[in-house]
Amino acid sequence: MLRPLLTLTGGLLAALAVVSAQAKPLSQEDISVAEVLRDRALESSDAYSIVESLTVEVGPRRAGTEGDRRAVAWALQKMKTLGFDRVYTEQIDVKRWHRGHAHAEVVAPFPQPLVVSSLGYSVPTPEGGLTAEIVEFADVEALTKAPAKKVKGKIVFINRRMERARTGEGYGPAVQGRSKGMRIAAEKGAVALLLRSVGTDSDRFAHTGMMSIEGVENPVPALALSAPDANLLEAMLKRGKPVEVKLDVDNELLADGPSFNVIGEITGREKPEEVMIIGAHLDSWDEGTGALDDGAGVAIVLETARLIAELPSRPRRTLRVVLFGAEEIGLVGAKQYVEAHRSELDNIIAVSESDFGAGKVWRFDTRLPENKFDIADQMMQLLAPLGIERGNNNSHGGPDGSVFVAQGVPAFGLYQDGTDYFDFHHTPNDTLDKVDPENLKQNVAAWVVMSFLVAEMEGDLGRVPTEH
Amino acid sequence: MLRPLLTLTGGLLAALAVVSAQAKPLSQEDISVAEVLRDRALESSDAYSIVESLTVEVGPRRAGTEGDRRAVAWALQKMKTLGFDRVYTEQIDVKRWHRGHAHAEVVAPFPQPLVVSSLGYSVPTPEGGLTAEIVEFADVEALTKAPAKKVKGKIVFINRRMERARTGEGYGPAVQGRSKGMRIAAEKGAVALLLRSVGTDSDRFAHTGMMSIEGVENPVPALALSAPDANLLEAMLKRGKPVEVKLDVDNELLADGPSFNVIGEITGREKPEEVMIIGAHLDSWDEGTGALDDGAGVAIVLETARLIAELPSRPRRTLRVVLFGAEEIGLVGAKQYVEAHRSELDNIIAVSESDFGAGKVWRFDTRLPENKFDIADQMMQLLAPLGIERGNNNSHGGPDGSVFVAQGVPAFGLYQDGTDYFDFHHTPNDTLDKVDPENLKQNVAAWVVMSFLVAEMEGDLGRVPTEH
Repeated sequence: MLRPLLTLTGGLLAALAVVSAQAKPLSQEDISVAEVLRDRALESSDAYSIVESLTVEVGPRRAGTEGDRRAVAWALQKMKTLGFDRVYTEQIDVKRWHRGHAHAEVVAPFPQPLVVSSLGYSVPTPEGGLTAEIVEFADVEALTKAPAKKVKGKIVFINRRMERARTGEGYGPAVQGRSKGMRIAAEKGAVALLLRSVGTDSDRFAHTGMMSIEGVENPVPALALSAPDANLLEAMLKRGKPVEVKLDVDNELLADGPSFNVIGEITGREKPEEVMIIGAHLDSWDEGTGALDDGAGVAIVLETARLIAELPSRPRRTLRVVLFGAEEIGLVGAKQYVEAHRSELDNIIAVSESDFGAGKVWRFDTRLPENKFDIADQMMQLLAPLGIERGNNNSHGGPDGSVFVAQGVPAFGLYQDGTDYFDFHHTPNDTLDKVDPENLKQNVAAWVVMSFLVAEMEGDLGRVPTEH
Repeated sequence: MLRPLLTLTGGLLAALAVVSAQAKPLSQEDISVAEVLRDRALESSDAYSIVESLTVEVGPRRAGTEGDRRAVAWALQKMKTLGFDRVYTEQIDVKRWHRGHAHAEVVAPFPQPLVVSSLGYSVPTPEGGLTAEIVEFADVEALTKAPAKKVKGKIVFINRRMERARTGEGYGPAVQGRSKGMRIAAEKGAVALLLRSVGTDSDRFAHTGMMSIEGVENPVPALALSAPDANLLEAMLKRGKPVEVKLDVDNELLADGPSFNVIGEITGREKPEEVMIIGAHLDSWDEGTGALDDGAGVAIVLETARLIAELPSRPRRTLRVVLFGAEEIGLVGAKQYVEAHRSELDNIIAVSESDFGAGKVWRFDTRLPENKFDIADQMMQLLAPLGIERGNNNSHGGPDGSVFVAQGVPAFGLYQDGTDYFDFHHTPNDTLDKVDPENLKQNVAAWVVMSFLVAEMEGDLGRVPTEH
């Protein structure tokens, strides 16, 4: 679409083309094929059907549950029908946890129920529940600084709001309350944690999510509150009387059990041992159907591979789609994958993961050695017409991808518009209706350009030194 | 703002002004006072604090519950602080009902949980729940036409979508499934009803609401499904295999009990026995905090009365604010009010109710005898600058107001923008954050114009013949 060279005169054009062909790492032929793939993706790719299938036929699939088991079977079957050369699973071990009920209500001074959700691995309340006064903190830092006597015997209420941003950059600071809040509250003698949901919506849904329980001696129940319910507590506290809340939570930590990474390969025609990994995570939280997190990502990378598998010949290298297990509970699948494949890491030429919903890709980040930036520039010729701008070289390759990046593996990041991602993230409201089929076509178009060119290119991408 | 007369020549203008002054029912002095009230409302009215108080200090208040009892106490107290001359309650009798849990899940072919809410007065399932195949109908008409053998032993799934409109006119046709669906399903031998929520959102909230159980011999459990869950069942059915759903519902019909209409009066200085009634309903459904339905309406009419009470003298007639009880379960408060006050109906000069959320008023409807249309035209001089257009003469005066209208009482309708009202209506998501304080100021400005002028005007409004 954007072809500035066409405005030059014919002779200059020819001369430039020769220079270009000699100097640039990606061949014109490969770029032409990638362009055809891109346009095919825009016209006829159907990632939507894949995420529809996953959400309707499987639905919630928290790691280690029955839904997870069904998702693994679904993924194997789906890969077989999509034309992969090899489809297999690799077992991983996960900490299992049963979510029971979670009820919360204000008992004084203004009795009314609250909408809450247990954070992942929250312990239950004692049988019959617990009732205590709440004590509010602006954020986890304020809680950290508070004297234990202010907290002891109380329910800690962390009331930090998350900022909306296309990049999702409000998440990092806000999620500290979820990952560390319970530990700090428990250490200071609190009886429970209520956390304003880490989310940007104003719907009456609580946002669940993982918290770290490792090494917490006396864990206490930890619940997310919906934004309107956090507002409610805030307004009650402003009236100056003690606010007492009753919690009744029934969860259970179970014995460790198996889950799986599900893997499908388009085997390379020349260097099958060299691998481009494109990934997403198969597991989801358990209150929605995981359409955005990460059904969309699963669909995007599977449809990308399907388009490449339809070419008359295989790319030079192997394209490996890894649907990681147990991402939500600590990148478990990615960590165990890297551990199990440590000796082969040098053959993983690059990694990229789709795990930020179903918005359009708007930025192309990389993590490449400086002498490989040309490759990204060439890719940009095909990505720019999709409305994608060149980003930075700090891509972490996605959550699971970051585990590979930590080992020096180069990465690509096709950054999606996440403006409304945290409206739905980790809530019952993460459902198929939030996915726009047209946006998925644009995603697949970008993914197929990047994936094909890396799998097909002559040279490699080297290694990227890790920062520490 | 709209003064076409100003384009006429001076002499003709003066002549017309004389004719106008003689012919028009509302005096220029009254109109001037109304204009001051309107502008004061726009600048400094604070209905928002009232709805904030109701939602924070009371919250859910379904008729006949503890929350309802607290709401009545709240309303009495609030009226006393707002400057009413007389504040009192009138007892009504309501059918009471306990909402227990309502769980639903697909058990085959694709097991996963569904988000549902019992419709008002739904019976429970047998202990341990019930499981049956679902059978889909496009709407209640299709169910009515279906042979009993298609329905017998099954769970009826009514899958009608509601249209979005500023007027909310999609509600009437869509709500038929809720009001009549269970009765028809039960008569044909169904074991339960699942209804696509009567709502316009695509959030994972089920919209509860009243259904008619009067005279149903063998009622069956009736539940609303959230829109995403209705989509899910629809998608499963398209795959061609029988879809089996398990329901586990625990509700209970209780003995009848008391609720109250709460009434506050600004007593008329000249004709205290003549009354302008402005109303809203105090009860709400029980899963949200009833901010839009009808906390906003309660706040608008209370703040309207407060502004009028601040005038140096009382209006000629009595302004009576009636906060009706038990509107949601069948206009119970309004019906019992009219029954109890039948002999005084001729003194109710007009009625109007605010019960359509917290959007801006955009249209001014009436129900007046034809020879009183001038009054509405004069009011429009003050309403038009608020962005309000003249509507029709078919106003029903609001849900509770309609009970008065059926007795020939004239009515006014300040029609709010309801574009997003049915996104939140009867769901847990009906919370304070959906209320815009600026919109409430505009509402109060319109209400104070209408309420003051009717209470103050020289003549009366006559009676409007009922249609049958």
